[in-house]
Amino acid sequence: MPVEIVMNHATFRKAWRFDAFVEACAAAGMRRVSIWGNEVAEIGLDAARARLRDSGMRAFGYNRAGPLLAGDPARRAELMAAAKAEIETAAALGSDHILLFPGGLPGGSKGLAASRSQTADACAILNDHAGNCGIALALEPLHPMLAGDRTALCTLAEANRLCDRLGANAGIVIDSYHVWWDAELEAQTALAGSRGRILGFHVNDWLIPTRDMVTDRGMMGDGVIDLAGMWSMVLRAGYDGPVEVEIFSEHWWAQDPDEVLALALERCAAIFSDEAAR
Amino acid sequence: MPVEIVMNHATFRKAWRFDAFVEACAAAGMRRVSIWGNEVAEIGLDAARARLRDSGMRAFGYNRAGPLLAGDPARRAELMAAAKAEIETAAALGSDHILLFPGGLPGGSKGLAASRSQTADACAILNDHAGNCGIALALEPLHPMLAGDRTALCTLAEANRLCDRLGANAGIVIDSYHVWWDAELEAQTALAGSRGRILGFHVNDWLIPTRDMVTDRGMMGDGVIDLAGMWSMVLRAGYDGPVEVEIFSEHWWAQDPDEVLALALERCAAIFSDEAAR
Repeated sequence: MPVEIVMNHATFRKAWRFDAFVEACAAAGMRRVSIWGNEVAEIGLDAARARLRDSGMRAFGYNRAGPLLAGDPARRAELMAAAKAEIETAAALGSDHILLFPGGLPGGSKGLAASRSQTADACAILNDHAGNCGIALALEPLHPMLAGDRTALCTLAEANRLCDRLGANAGIVIDSYHVWWDAELEAQTALAGSRGRILGFHVNDWLIPTRDMVTDRGMMGDGVIDLAGMWSMVLRAGYDGPVEVEIFSEHWWAQDPDEVLALALERCAAIFSDEAAR
Repeated sequence: MPVEIVMNHATFRKAWRFDAFVEACAAAGMRRVSIWGNEVAEIGLDAARARLRDSGMRAFGYNRAGPLLAGDPARRAELMAAAKAEIETAAALGSDHILLFPGGLPGGSKGLAASRSQTADACAILNDHAGNCGIALALEPLHPMLAGDRTALCTLAEANRLCDRLGANAGIVIDSYHVWWDAELEAQTALAGSRGRILGFHVNDWLIPTRDMVTDRGMMGDGVIDLAGMWSMVLRAGYDGPVEVEIFSEHWWAQDPDEVLALALERCAAIFSDEAAR
């Protein structure tokens, strides 16, 4: 049986709006899509739900809850309220999980340790809310180069520890780009799997040179990540979900989206096999 | 007693050659400098030794042994021979330690795991050689964003594990830029200290935004790293060496080097106190 592939809308964010994206994925034979709140907001929740239903598609990942951190308590309360609203939207669309991004250091402060602690507290509140809404909360450790401005959660080990505190409704999305460098990758993937908390596996590639910290990810196979090896680790850890393609890239955003989609599927077929675990 | 400050020549690499760098540091009242093999090669070993002696300065860190990894065995043998020669030069100059940089993935391969294993083997050979030459071998974990093209050693935890294997002559240089994001920073610093293996503490700062992965480091105090907190950790771990300023920065390289030196000393005086451990 072929491995299920899911496209993340971010891969096509400059070429396709919600409708076109969902339609293209359905036409290519996929069953699920990973979507973004700003795109849903643009056409409205009801329209988005109707588009998914009419095309026979379901929402897999929903991006996103966060950022959450701010120096000012009033601003922090606003951000938490916004994150709760996103959780409700994600649940209303029947999404499998909502991705949580804590955000960076408030106002250029030097308080990474404080950000970690605030992140943990905020996650506890949002995980309860997500549980009540019937949707899993997905923590995604981001690459340490994003520690200053995007997250205080940089490794699978941290995400596993935080999930231990949060309990059953919280899980982890493993993005190859963010964690491929980690010497503890295999051990922490196995640990996450043993707790049944791997919610997704995002793929793309690390290019050499990398020209931008956010928008220069590579197409699978064009960089140095051993993606087949990672997929094998994830399968051995018990993951039974899809491979999700998420490529933030000025280069790929500038190409014909139909061609990018076809190429991504071709690369996935070459790299990700359900026999990898054997 | 004020904290001893050491300048790394890299901070002034575009403005000063070996002589001018050593002279400026001596004139500013410093007792030790961290130097680079390419600068020594330019004036010759004997001349470099004479300059240090005449100015009353000693060599602290010597950069560097490496890169070491290559796909081709003949090329790998060449690189190992070059690294051994650097160790000999570093020892001949009376340097406290030589920094080892394993280098990146050979030829854009996907073998990060293989690189780690080759790195460990190469380090064992070079550590023996350094021990015979009477100089400590310093491992410096580099930021994970450099995992593809510069190193396979990305965390203090990895460096500690490798040092456990290598034995007493090997130690670790902690560079704030490379490890500030790590949730295990305090625990791994304490572990390194408990083994008496912290050989140096490099300072600079993480800027937001960071425009280049190699040459956009900040002046201490201009970024988001809690440098006073890190210094306190390092002191509590038992480190009794100097603070070393190493700023790779196109911005600072373009400024008047005397002004950069004065500013770096001013910032160090404001941030690093020997009372931080109390």
